[in-house]
Amino acid sequence: RLFFYSTSSVKNMDEILTRTLDSLPSYETREKSPPPPESSSLEFIQFYRSLDKSQRPAFLAKLSSDFGVDHKCVAELAANVMDSQKRDISTVLQAEDRLRYCLTPRYKVLLNHISRVEGGVKFLVDLKADVIEFLASKTNDSPHIRDLNGTLKSMLSEWFSVGLLSLERVTWKSPCELLQKISQYEAVHPVRNWTDIKRRVGPYRRCYVFTHGAMPGEPLVVLHVALKEEISDNIQTIVREFSSLDSVEDINRVNAAVFYSISSTQPGLQGVELGNYLIKRVVRELQGEFPHLNQFSSLSPIPGFTNWLLGLLNEQRKEGPSNRILSDMEFMDIEEITGGRAYETMQKLLSTNEWVSSERLVKALEPALMRLCAWYLYGEKHRGYALNPVANFHLQNGATMWRLNWQADTSPRGLSASCGMMVNYRYFLQDTSANSGRYLRTKEIEASDQIRNLVLQFQKASKL
Amino acid sequence: RLFFYSTSSVKNMDEILTRTLDSLPSYETREKSPPPPESSSLEFIQFYRSLDKSQRPAFLAKLSSDFGVDHKCVAELAANVMDSQKRDISTVLQAEDRLRYCLTPRYKVLLNHISRVEGGVKFLVDLKADVIEFLASKTNDSPHIRDLNGTLKSMLSEWFSVGLLSLERVTWKSPCELLQKISQYEAVHPVRNWTDIKRRVGPYRRCYVFTHGAMPGEPLVVLHVALKEEISDNIQTIVREFSSLDSVEDINRVNAAVFYSISSTQPGLQGVELGNYLIKRVVRELQGEFPHLNQFSSLSPIPGFTNWLLGLLNEQRKEGPSNRILSDMEFMDIEEITGGRAYETMQKLLSTNEWVSSERLVKALEPALMRLCAWYLYGEKHRGYALNPVANFHLQNGATMWRLNWQADTSPRGLSASCGMMVNYRYFLQDTSANSGRYLRTKEIEASDQIRNLVLQFQKASKL
Amino acid sequence: RLFFYSTSSVKNMDEILTRTLDSLPSYETREKSPPPPESSSLEFIQFYRSLDKSQRPAFLAKLSSDFGVDHKCVAELAANVMDSQKRDISTVLQAEDRLRYCLTPRYKVLLNHISRVEGGVKFLVDLKADVIEFLASKTNDSPHIRDLNGTLKSMLSEWFSVGLLSLERVTWKSPCELLQKISQYEAVHPVRNWTDIKRRVGPYRRCYVFTHGAMPGEPLVVLHVALKEEISDNIQTIVREFSSLDSVEDINRVNAAVFYSISSTQPGLQGVELGNYLIKRVVRELQGEFPHLNQFSSLSPIPGFTNWLLGLLNEQRKEGPSNRILSDMEFMDIEEITGGRAYETMQKLLSTNEWVSSERLVKALEPALMRLCAWYLYGEKHRGYALNPVANFHLQNGATMWRLNWQADTSPRGLSASCGMMVNYRYFLQDTSANSGRYLRTKEIEASDQIRNLVLQFQKASKL
Amino acid sequence: RLFFYSTSSVKNMDEILTRTLDSLPSYETREKSPPPPESSSLEFIQFYRSLDKSQRPAFLAKLSSDFGVDHKCVAELAANVMDSQKRDISTVLQAEDRLRYCLTPRYKVLLNHISRVEGGVKFLVDLKADVIEFLASKTNDSPHIRDLNGTLKSMLSEWFSVGLLSLERVTWKSPCELLQKISQYEAVHPVRNWTDIKRRVGPYRRCYVFTHGAMPGEPLVVLHVALKEEISDNIQTIVREFSSLDSVEDINRVNAAVFYSISSTQPGLQGVELGNYLIKRVVRELQGEFPHLNQFSSLSPIPGFTNWLLGLLNEQRKEGPSNRILSDMEFMDIEEITGGRAYETMQKLLSTNEWVSSERLVKALEPALMRLCAWYLYGEKHRGYALNPVANFHLQNGATMWRLNWQADTSPRGLSASCGMMVNYRYFLQDTSANSGRYLRTKEIEASDQIRNLVLQFQKASKL
Repeated sequence: RLFFYSTSSVKNMDEILTRTLDSLPSYETREKSPPPPESSSLEFIQFYRSLDKSQRPAFLAKLSSDFGVDHKCVAELAANVMDSQKRDISTVLQAEDRLRYCLTPRYKVLLNHISRVEGGVKFLVDLKADVIEFLASKTNDSPHIRDLNGTLKSMLSEWFSVGLLSLERVTWKSPCELLQKISQYEAVHPVRNWTDIKRRVGPYRRCYVFTHGAMPGEPLVVLHVALKEEISDNIQTIVREFSSLDSVEDINRVNAAVFYSISSTQPGLQGVELGNYLIKRVVRELQGEFPHLNQFSSLSPIPGFTNWLLGLLNEQRKEGPSNRILSDMEFMDIEEITGGRAYETMQKLLSTNEWVSSERLVKALEPALMRLCAWYLYGEKHRGYALNPVANFHLQNGATMWRLNWQADTSPRGLSASCGMMVNYRYFLQDTSANSGRYLRTKEIEASDQIRNLVLQFQKASKL
Repeated sequence: RLFFYSTSSVKNMDEILTRTLDSLPSYETREKSPPPPESSSLEFIQFYRSLDKSQRPAFLAKLSSDFGVDHKCVAELAANVMDSQKRDISTVLQAEDRLRYCLTPRYKVLLNHISRVEGGVKFLVDLKADVIEFLASKTNDSPHIRDLNGTLKSMLSEWFSVGLLSLERVTWKSPCELLQKISQYEAVHPVRNWTDIKRRVGPYRRCYVFTHGAMPGEPLVVLHVALKEEISDNIQTIVREFSSLDSVEDINRVNAAVFYSISSTQPGLQGVELGNYLIKRVVRELQGEFPHLNQFSSLSPIPGFTNWLLGLLNEQRKEGPSNRILSDMEFMDIEEITGGRAYETMQKLLSTNEWVSSERLVKALEPALMRLCAWYLYGEKHRGYALNPVANFHLQNGATMWRLNWQADTSPRGLSASCGMMVNYRYFLQDTSANSGRYLRTKEIEASDQIRNLVLQFQKASKL
Repeated sequence: RLFFYSTSSVKNMDEILTRTLDSLPSYETREKSPPPPESSSLEFIQFYRSLDKSQRPAFLAKLSSDFGVDHKCVAELAANVMDSQKRDISTVLQAEDRLRYCLTPRYKVLLNHISRVEGGVKFLVDLKADVIEFLASKTNDSPHIRDLNGTLKSMLSEWFSVGLLSLERVTWKSPCELLQKISQYEAVHPVRNWTDIKRRVGPYRRCYVFTHGAMPGEPLVVLHVALKEEISDNIQTIVREFSSLDSVEDINRVNAAVFYSISSTQPGLQGVELGNYLIKRVVRELQGEFPHLNQFSSLSPIPGFTNWLLGLLNEQRKEGPSNRILSDMEFMDIEEITGGRAYETMQKLLSTNEWVSSERLVKALEPALMRLCAWYLYGEKHRGYALNPVANFHLQNGATMWRLNWQADTSPRGLSASCGMMVNYRYFLQDTSANSGRYLRTKEIEASDQIRNLVLQFQKASKL
Repeated sequence: RLFFYSTSSVKNMDEILTRTLDSLPSYETREKSPPPPESSSLEFIQFYRSLDKSQRPAFLAKLSSDFGVDHKCVAELAANVMDSQKRDISTVLQAEDRLRYCLTPRYKVLLNHISRVEGGVKFLVDLKADVIEFLASKTNDSPHIRDLNGTLKSMLSEWFSVGLLSLERVTWKSPCELLQKISQYEAVHPVRNWTDIKRRVGPYRRCYVFTHGAMPGEPLVVLHVALKEEISDNIQTIVREFSSLDSVEDINRVNAAVFYSISSTQPGLQGVELGNYLIKRVVRELQGEFPHLNQFSSLSPIPGFTNWLLGLLNEQRKEGPSNRILSDMEFMDIEEITGGRAYETMQKLLSTNEWVSSERLVKALEPALMRLCAWYLYGEKHRGYALNPVANFHLQNGATMWRLNWQADTSPRGLSASCGMMVNYRYFLQDTSANSGRYLRTKEIEASDQIRNLVLQFQKASKL
């Protein structure tokens, strides 16, 4: 039955692709062709949505390879362009224009028509999410799919350019639909109930989203801000502090804006810069509301640090007596406190979060974990850029790696991710633009003295 | 002083173009380059807006020629593409991708950045209007400007695709800003005062606009609809009927939706199909509201008919006794009524609208003017399509040329434009899609028996 | 310390009452006195809110007795009115007007001023709630307090008259603040989570509230409606049915509107008829939306039935062998099934809801419980009106006691309240007005044949 | 025919009054009576609206006399109250309560029911306007009608108390319906077209209204404010200044808020203080927006001055040579300039506004007109309060008569009203409350030195 269904749907695929894509106009008739009826786009959407996840890769493969660029035509027109070089500019431009038209994948025209029907843009965002997933899982890695990915990305980048986005402040009076989605999308510090979310849109808090006309009611990126007297070094004082739930904001107590959570909601918009723009817009918004506000900083998680450290410990154990992670002193301290072998014990205690129950241990581990974490953030790289994705995001935006905070998130989640540490990426507004450019070009990380010192300590301790 | 200013601004042009455009990333670094600061786009906008209308053509010429496509690079990459033909598909695709990147005019990247700042999209729409105007007035007709025009058009087409447009019904409770703009943009049947516009959004009327997230508060196309018991043959009963201003709509009296005015408001969006889509959306909206409503038709002006006829009369007069416009009977009738020479008199009376004061003359002229007008609409062509732009618009949408109405608009405006006649283009919903395709491909006009008969009469009378 | 505080606050009371109330204008100067400054009303509000619950009765006692009506003045003016009887009508009217002014408690003027400041109306609603509570708990039952109660009630009745209320439909797009309050106020069928409340505002459901300009964002009465093919006999199919959460409403499947929950949110508005008006407005609203909808009914809980029955059983047990509750047959059946003594067992099983686990017992008890419950609703009275408050509410509104439903609410809550039964009060629109009048005047209950038959069976069985 | 109609409608009157009013409940049954059906109130409304203006007085007379207070019952209950004096307080209170109930006119209950139906409150406001008009025109001055007037006033005062009013800022984005009404209601400085009204809601201007939940979309009072660097002395710079139409407000240039127009829109709300409260709310609103703003003043017209002066001149002319209006010097100057007899000439020139064409005359008249006008505002009284209604309004609000401005409104309207002068009533916020009380009690006018000096000059000149 499955086989039969699958065949039939493949047959449908051909049919539907042929029908929708064969009628695309030639260069000559491109201005004289009425757009296909909306029903055709709607049918395409419905067909794709009806496909099983397992059937989609084949469909996308077919779409991207059979209905992409006509290479023969490209080659011919490329020849024309070369021939035209010695002719007048008008001829050159026309040859180029034809070539450009021919270089546009045929499916792009289809995708454009789809974008015009109701729900079409949202469909393409979801389609892009599929493509990303298939590429990542290697179920469907072909040059054609990568081309499709690129085409979709450039289309989405245009539609989701900032001029078309609306900034919306979310309050307790915002539609429930919106608040529920925000609660559900909140990945960084999960929302547990009405009071939790009410807190995040209440006094001394701000919550902003970008929405888009083509996806009404759908928040695309969500930014949570706490308004504080100084830059926070602890997340619980932000998300678990309910005392001020009914208080009236005192403008004189607002000196720092702390971005404590930023979440993208559409996997299909990965690679389309929204978070960066949202932060910039929100900064402007907050400056309008609080003219004297001048400290802007994130309070960010450090996902991956604990795992990275456990890997390091593992390696260390295997490679024997060399002593790169702990100083001799620390090593002995820990063995004394735990009564076991330092690395093994650490491995065990870190993976269960048990170490935090021992005050002595916490104290003993602090210097080591701080310098290790600073190194993890500053020194570990992927293609030359910061390995940690949150760090990379803020550094690309032009922020400075500003302060590492001990016991900043002592929730189980925070301990598992980063031994309870969090980091502030600070936005010095006059420098972000230059920082961003430098980081992108030179991969050099802008960091504060605290971070640099910790890194130095790490380098000394580990004899790097 | 003027000379100096002009020089200085030309110098500024170079400077500003070089500064904003030289830093554009290469193919290799295109993903790693942060966008230029917003201030750069804002500066460009401000600079262009500060230019005198007379200085703009030179600026646009420079922009489009010096910062367009790098032809040398294109030629090289075209050679690469040709060379890659025998290699694996991955190599082909990559060569094509590079070529595609290189074929993108450099100014397109700039325009994209501009679209992202506040007010940027509106700026590009206005820029496009300038380009159209310069091309039309031949002040600035160069292949490069035409290329710029094409680039802008394709960009605007994407941003103003229907998925990004919002349909809004305008009522007397809509923002005054919106209603005032609608009044001011109304080109077809001018709005004179508050009561006039109140009437057009009151009972038995609908007014819809498309708006766009990037241009808030700005109606892009406006469609006025009258809800009638039957398809109207007279415009005064629509725009000058105030008796029902406070009445409550009786759903049973709504059998026909008459589109009596459609106006585009943004010259820069010429060529971006909005009116067509607005009509379709409104039809759907009305069907939702009045499930039994099934007659849809325009009541449209016929701009240009009187002028065309006066030209014909002139020709006729010069070319002598042949008698193509009036039948012998008509000719004699008119000479008798007016006591003058038929064509000369007609020319005079038609150009002053005086003929309508004589009931006899009105009666005598009716058959001739009706068949002449039917011919004008149906038979006169521009590049094979209907010469009359309103006719061409509705025919492209798939409407049928349905009924020519005598004394349908007896306002001075209506008489001057088309001797008081108006025409209904009727939308038979099940046929519009097919009609539209046929008209675009074959240029064949779908017309009712009334129209066809009038055309036949004309052909007989004029011995064509 | 407490004593001291209390004294001090009593001193404050005197002070504040004297200050705010002594300056009230006389009859002669009433038009010439500017209102007291708002600060004075705000001070009063703040002072009262700062009082401990235990201090409020004393304050209210003082306010109502020392700042009410000046009895001496009333007596004098009453004498004047009597004297004026033989004089001209103008004199009579003036004497009456003075008397009327004097009969107005002085605190009423204060309360009026309070109503004018921001938050003032809400304060008076809360004050009224205190008064009601104190009267009910006998902590503060004095003729003066009862007068204050009456004055407040008449004031609130005017401000909360229907013309000043706004009907609002609540949807998933309504402000979160509103939906959270509705969730929290829902007393009849508690809301457990987001999905629960989303269901209640989703397809085939309607939720309406009355709001009031003086208490923005505060729902005053909430009515939940289910749109059904027929009048529901079971609540779980309404509040636990999530299958249709994303479905699109099919107008042809909407034949009955079932009011399955109505809650007042402001204890202080007890006695101000809002629920009645809300039902009427909603009926009108629904008729506008679904012209063919013509069945309107509640699906209502029967709070108090189980308790009433347990009392009856207790009495029965004490009073011995007479057999009013069960027929002989039923009596024996139950003894057989349970193996215990019928009334004792029933008492035990009903108070623990255990009886529902035995299918046989459920079957055996059905006829008896149905007729007992019908009697409870129809026959048990308080001051001549239906004892059950829900019944009394709907009967006053003019509804008919229409159908008693077995196993209509098998939640623990439903079993504890009414052995799982629920009742439909049906609104026959053309009769409600007459029914309402008759019930209020004659206390006669309008009931369906089903109910009447059950009552007859009860009367026969119990030999009443 | 008219007679017949009138009879028939009088018959209807009796019928409708009897039907709606006879069924009102007694004291005993007042809590047990369902409200009459809404249809009854709607019928009453419809009937009254259908009456000719000429028929209404008779109807109102009947309503107020036959369905008012039952005097016999009042007398009896008054006797009861007197008898109860020696009994316990509970008996006293009850007797008073019955008497209070009986003193309530029966029509008040009807009016209350009317207020509850849709459009009912608006109906009562319009009814009140009729009553005021009839009382003013003496067509219907009876003690009963005056009583009805008082009853309606107290009811409307409660419903239109500030807690139930919403402050709304009107902008160019406000509903057209609202802006059109505001344009139409603007009585002080008429609005001529879209640009005029756009100016009044544009930059450096504020427009606020009070609206009421029971009359949605209807502005009740409208206040226009200009934001200025200093308190304006000329109205044309406010209503005819369009240069700043598109400018962006510079907060540093906003030092003074000038109330240049305040209009009530509902004649029926005359006597219900709304303007006063609106000014206070707006002051608070503006202080919120511009924390440093501290000058608040009206720029007010002086309706009636020219007429008053013409009357004075007439008197003067008749009474002969005494010379109270002009000093000898002035007298001679004017005779010299005009070449005519001073008073006759002035009378003629002032009534035609011709005097402004002569610069010399304008100069010569300035001192006299200024001191005369100051006297008119300050010295002329009605029942002891300022005769000029605008002055009386602002003085009751606690403003200070601050500055008289020469050539402040040189429009024909301004010249006809007050020889082109206008006056600022300034609101010194810390004093308004005290000023208001003093003025109301002692009728003493708070005025600036400028005003006092002008008054002194007048008194000296006129030898008062």
